[in-house]
Amino acid sequence: MSGPTPTPPQTLLQIVKSCDNFQLGARTEKVVPWLLSPSPCSAAVGLLRPEIVEQLRKEAQSSPSPSWYFGSDEAGKQWVSFADGIKTPSARSRVMKDLCERWRDTGLWPDEISPRKWRNELYPVYRNPFGPRDFPGENEDAHGDSLNYAFRMERAASGLFGIVTFGVHMTVYEEVEDGSDPSYNIWVPRRAATKQTWPGYLDNSVAGGIEAGLGVFDCVVKESMEEASIPEDVVRRYARPTGSVSYFFQTPRGWLQPEVEYVYELSLPPNSGVQPQPLDGEVESFELLPLKKVVELMRAGLFKYNCAVVIVDFMVRKGIITPDNEPDYQEIVTRLHGRFDYDRWAS
Amino acid sequence: MSGPTPTPPQTLLQIVKSCDNFQLGARTEKVVPWLLSPSPCSAAVGLLRPEIVEQLRKEAQSSPSPSWYFGSDEAGKQWVSFADGIKTPSARSRVMKDLCERWRDTGLWPDEISPRKWRNELYPVYRNPFGPRDFPGENEDAHGDSLNYAFRMERAASGLFGIVTFGVHMTVYEEVEDGSDPSYNIWVPRRAATKQTWPGYLDNSVAGGIEAGLGVFDCVVKESMEEASIPEDVVRRYARPTGSVSYFFQTPRGWLQPEVEYVYELSLPPNSGVQPQPLDGEVESFELLPLKKVVELMRAGLFKYNCAVVIVDFMVRKGIITPDNEPDYQEIVTRLHGRFDYDRWAS
Repeated sequence: MSGPTPTPPQTLLQIVKSCDNFQLGARTEKVVPWLLSPSPCSAAVGLLRPEIVEQLRKEAQSSPSPSWYFGSDEAGKQWVSFADGIKTPSARSRVMKDLCERWRDTGLWPDEISPRKWRNELYPVYRNPFGPRDFPGENEDAHGDSLNYAFRMERAASGLFGIVTFGVHMTVYEEVEDGSDPSYNIWVPRRAATKQTWPGYLDNSVAGGIEAGLGVFDCVVKESMEEASIPEDVVRRYARPTGSVSYFFQTPRGWLQPEVEYVYELSLPPNSGVQPQPLDGEVESFELLPLKKVVELMRAGLFKYNCAVVIVDFMVRKGIITPDNEPDYQEIVTRLHGRFDYDRWAS
Repeated sequence: MSGPTPTPPQTLLQIVKSCDNFQLGARTEKVVPWLLSPSPCSAAVGLLRPEIVEQLRKEAQSSPSPSWYFGSDEAGKQWVSFADGIKTPSARSRVMKDLCERWRDTGLWPDEISPRKWRNELYPVYRNPFGPRDFPGENEDAHGDSLNYAFRMERAASGLFGIVTFGVHMTVYEEVEDGSDPSYNIWVPRRAATKQTWPGYLDNSVAGGIEAGLGVFDCVVKESMEEASIPEDVVRRYARPTGSVSYFFQTPRGWLQPEVEYVYELSLPPNSGVQPQPLDGEVESFELLPLKKVVELMRAGLFKYNCAVVIVDFMVRKGIITPDNEPDYQEIVTRLHGRFDYDRWAS
């Protein structure tokens, strides 16, 4: 059977740390903030590694009207931004579209942005990643600079630019009365062996990235059908939001992925007859597993990195992990809700 | 009727911000880390404002064997620590006891540590505030330096030394089926007019600080009886931990209070007959209020600062605040789980 190889059991904190594994300033490679406009006070929307900065420099040098600006101040602080003329959402989105398609077609960073890795999903980029998820609609420039929305870009390039990405994760479970304490059986999918990312790994019951313009709950509804064949009326009736997790992930190749996952749960009533089933080919199969078994598989490294933290969050919320039974409780809880050192991105 | 004066309605983010209102480095007054031992690499356990550093200097100068060490390196980084000879938990606790009692009796900072403000509760101080809540028992030095526990000190002085303090907050509520969505009635106490802090303000159903050596759930059990007359068997049966909130509060007088509150909830079954009632005089009265009313009172500034954030956390967890209905959702969620910039305390 294809899929990941088990590792020696990890603690819950180790699981969280392998997902929240990047800290700004605590490494040797110098990353440069990506700002919206040439002013150093402009909003930081991403973090660029040296090889990306170098490539953008090349592109700017070979163009008669460069799309990029390279700033630095007396203190040696550097930044990269869109060039002065690129100041509307649609202009920024166009620059990113041309750039990403060119990088895809010329084979730069093929592990990230090759035709095979291309997602064909446009992710929104916000001035403030913790602010409103607004969207101007089809006419991107209709609201000028009054929205938090700044532009959109191809999902596959998000790690190359270190932008904050947003997704949903929903745990679908059945509650079992087991003496005085409730226990939980959780629907666990295995990712298809053909997935571009994390093939064969275990996943959260329903999960997906939120494309520009889609509401968060609408995304849950959409993914529930596409990935798990759960009918819309069941989701609308039983699903509920319970918070979010956020963590700063650096991929094995060094790309930066600060992520926010809005967390939902769907408690299926006993004998509901609803069973998650694969639909769009992204998932190979679903299995209903006792939480205890899920934790075992998680500790053996068989879950996709960020699904494990969603399950840890579930266990905190349900009182399975407690301040009295888990020595790393407070570090786990705070690391599930990281701010990405965001105040330091541009300063 | 005595008590706080209502303010114009605040947003939920404003409520969170008035509790999580301090950021290291974003202010003019320079705070100095308080380390355990003279080495600059030793664990940071607190943050000292200039007037405290000055007072400690005076005390060290007038003593033949000073308890304090004042360090600085070439880069201008300063720190204060226990002096070289003070290296066991019991020695540190003794220094803090003498110091706090002297400050109490001589009337330094009477708003913090006068006889009227004295709490007579010993709070634990840990090497790593996010680490294990271990405790050596009566013989403080039994484990040498192998525990996370470092020493204990009078609660009233915690703000003067900027140590991380730990408490419990439990929301006691009744769930009401109201059509398809559940709604909640919450037991809300009013603090006694004679309380040393926040007299007359509304509070969380059960709340209290955790003294050195007390288990977290044991503290919930104890406070439930002392503050709300809820019998132990009811708490043990129905209460459950649901996470924690942590925030960096600066008092109106400028004192630093980074706090961790372990969050519990107790859902009273319909017709349980259990009703929270004042017992030890800390609470004036209890009222069962619909969540909607609670939010209104919260927005009018009538709740103690940190009780409001516990209710905001409740609303996130119960899906009342959602990523789609609250523009500040992600900032609220992350600010409920702050790390206090802890990695910067000593660096």
